[in-house]
Amino acid sequence: MSYFSFELDPALAADPVFDLHKRGKMEINATVPLASRDHLSLAYTPGVARVCEAIADDEALADDYTWTANTVAVVTDGSAVLGLGNIGPKAAMPVMEGKAILFKQFGGVDSIPICLGTQDVEGIIAAVKAIAPSFGGINLEDISAPRCFEIERRLDAELDIPVFHDDQHGTAVVTLAALRNAAKLLGRRFADLRIVISGAGAAGVAITQTLIAAGVEGANVIVCDSRGIIHTERGDLTSVKAELAATTNLSGRTGGIAEALIGADVLIGVSGGAIAESAIAGMAPGGIIFALANPTPEVAPEVAHKYAAIVATGRSDFPNQINNVLAFPGIFRGTLDVRASTITARMKVAAAEAIADVVSDDLRPDAIVPSPLDPRVAPAVAAAVAAAAEADGVARRSAPEPASSQTRPAVTS
Amino acid sequence: MSYFSFELDPALAADPVFDLHKRGKMEINATVPLASRDHLSLAYTPGVARVCEAIADDEALADDYTWTANTVAVVTDGSAVLGLGNIGPKAAMPVMEGKAILFKQFGGVDSIPICLGTQDVEGIIAAVKAIAPSFGGINLEDISAPRCFEIERRLDAELDIPVFHDDQHGTAVVTLAALRNAAKLLGRRFADLRIVISGAGAAGVAITQTLIAAGVEGANVIVCDSRGIIHTERGDLTSVKAELAATTNLSGRTGGIAEALIGADVLIGVSGGAIAESAIAGMAPGGIIFALANPTPEVAPEVAHKYAAIVATGRSDFPNQINNVLAFPGIFRGTLDVRASTITARMKVAAAEAIADVVSDDLRPDAIVPSPLDPRVAPAVAAAVAAAAEADGVARRSAPEPASSQTRPAVTS
Repeated sequence: MSYFSFELDPALAADPVFDLHKRGKMEINATVPLASRDHLSLAYTPGVARVCEAIADDEALADDYTWTANTVAVVTDGSAVLGLGNIGPKAAMPVMEGKAILFKQFGGVDSIPICLGTQDVEGIIAAVKAIAPSFGGINLEDISAPRCFEIERRLDAELDIPVFHDDQHGTAVVTLAALRNAAKLLGRRFADLRIVISGAGAAGVAITQTLIAAGVEGANVIVCDSRGIIHTERGDLTSVKAELAATTNLSGRTGGIAEALIGADVLIGVSGGAIAESAIAGMAPGGIIFALANPTPEVAPEVAHKYAAIVATGRSDFPNQINNVLAFPGIFRGTLDVRASTITARMKVAAAEAIADVVSDDLRPDAIVPSPLDPRVAPAVAAAVAAAAEADGVARRSAPEPASSQTRPAVTS
Repeated sequence: MSYFSFELDPALAADPVFDLHKRGKMEINATVPLASRDHLSLAYTPGVARVCEAIADDEALADDYTWTANTVAVVTDGSAVLGLGNIGPKAAMPVMEGKAILFKQFGGVDSIPICLGTQDVEGIIAAVKAIAPSFGGINLEDISAPRCFEIERRLDAELDIPVFHDDQHGTAVVTLAALRNAAKLLGRRFADLRIVISGAGAAGVAITQTLIAAGVEGANVIVCDSRGIIHTERGDLTSVKAELAATTNLSGRTGGIAEALIGADVLIGVSGGAIAESAIAGMAPGGIIFALANPTPEVAPEVAHKYAAIVATGRSDFPNQINNVLAFPGIFRGTLDVRASTITARMKVAAAEAIADVVSDDLRPDAIVPSPLDPRVAPAVAAAVAAAAEADGVARRSAPEPASSQTRPAVTS
């Protein structure tokens, strides 16, 4: 049986990226045999009717006898894809497929890319609520700020499965992990760090909240958006930024990024905009710079190293890559393992500590986070997240034994 | 890495049907390698951005460089599942997973079960339209009549991908295939057959329309619902049944199923209700009975054989199983292969003829349709459907060569 036909542009077909992407990057497969009439009578009619009836009588059995509890929808509206902006649902699909296969590769989580044909907040919420019975969790992806905040908040409140906007929390978790190890290397206490966050979109907001949840003093944090330092006197703040103004920058500093950076120990760039070397030069010596914009960091690493002791970026071709793949597979693995109803702040902080701990015995300034391919990360994150869910009372099952018996058996068709 | 934890009821765990269903029946897999940093940089950042940009510039490239064009959503609201009725989305999932893996096994079509949390017509239509950019087609499944008619009609009109309600058209296609071979065996012309269809739900309506499209005389067809023969004098007809009244039963017969069957050559039961032997006895001798209700046919096969020359059921444990799996994998394979925008009446009739032709050289009264496992069926159906789509002007690409080169290569991680 053919799979499906395709016609390739000859120029694209010779390109290794396009060659790899042809016909997409994922497929579905049966995990049960379908080769005989007996197989069909177990997996389809008449056998399947008994499983349906059992779930109709006790809905909780759906967790055991369908793929739902291990399956996550990766949902986007295509409005903020990578650094490409609002490219729409069709063009977002290659990223969502990539996310889906990373979920499986590193977390054993089945996930399905859902690229929505609407960018309306109510339309997105209604669509996700409609499809939610088919999934064990919802991973929101590449939805632009500030819509992403309301969409996540509403869905998390209205659904009984976990909802996680990875651009916010995945980035925040890995950033926290990296900052914890960097501070440890430098012998600095979180509570003493003066931190500047450049960017108040999805990632900047979540990083600020997560760092404060992990022990950073909000008073010592300054957040900048494209108009400069966020402070309570500004009249142009969205509700989310107004909350930031109330909890950060308690000294009421004003001005631009250069004013913000004067005396700072840490710069976390999640803005996409370049930051001048003259502004960086105002930081306290021997500090930390995470320039996470992709593909072009806010500060070139060689410039950052002139002023900071530890430098990280989002790129795979420099040391200390801050990459969400360190977080989301393990976070959902642990969340699904205990059927957590939501993902709490404690679960996110636990995930960050687990990521940091994987490399804590061998910390070096150019190795503050594990490699994205390190196979120890996701199981450690999953265990920590599951334990935190139990501690927070949001787990609906106990964590599994970490035994190989949990591995799905091979198909025997 | 563990897949996911589960706790099984000991009594259910010992049952082969439940044992097979534990953790569901399907999974997703990557079709590209993810084992090295180089792999990640091709399949994910930074490589993937170039594919996104190319699709943003030319949306048609999504067909070539994502899994979308080969992926079908199997959508239900759980309102009419098998013969179990309105059991809801969670309990419907085992059937939808079964459908999805049969799509892959027989048609090479990737498909995703989507069980909706709404049974509102407008809610269903909005949800399917929202997720449609992620899919190459929509298979509606187990949605109750008469809502299913409006939902399918609206979605087919408003989306540019094919929409197919399998309970209507899959059943109609296989029934037409079986009737064609039965008539051939008996030396009867379609135009002469007097046909009674017992049941005016999704299947009964579509069978009536499809048989007429294939050459049966509407004047010679009588459709019965639970209140008896459908005729123009009845004041209780839905709009769909009023259409049936206008196109069938032109002699204006009235009464119940017994009156309908007097002198009939063919009985097609898709009602789920038993039909008395005394009513069957009124049929013309040497005819055809398809008693398709599952799990209990409207007429027991041993009774049907007393009055008819050819008998078929929906069950795998009797000869002549009328099973939709003969139709839907090949229909979508052919439809996706040529990127048809819709599935026309001609495509359905072509599918039925292809199914019938597979066994036409070896017709016997107990072998009027192929086995559901016959590997010749889906490719033959796909080729016929693709050709019909081209003839009807709804194809957006030419049909592929039936070459092994179309097979997806193995993953080389």
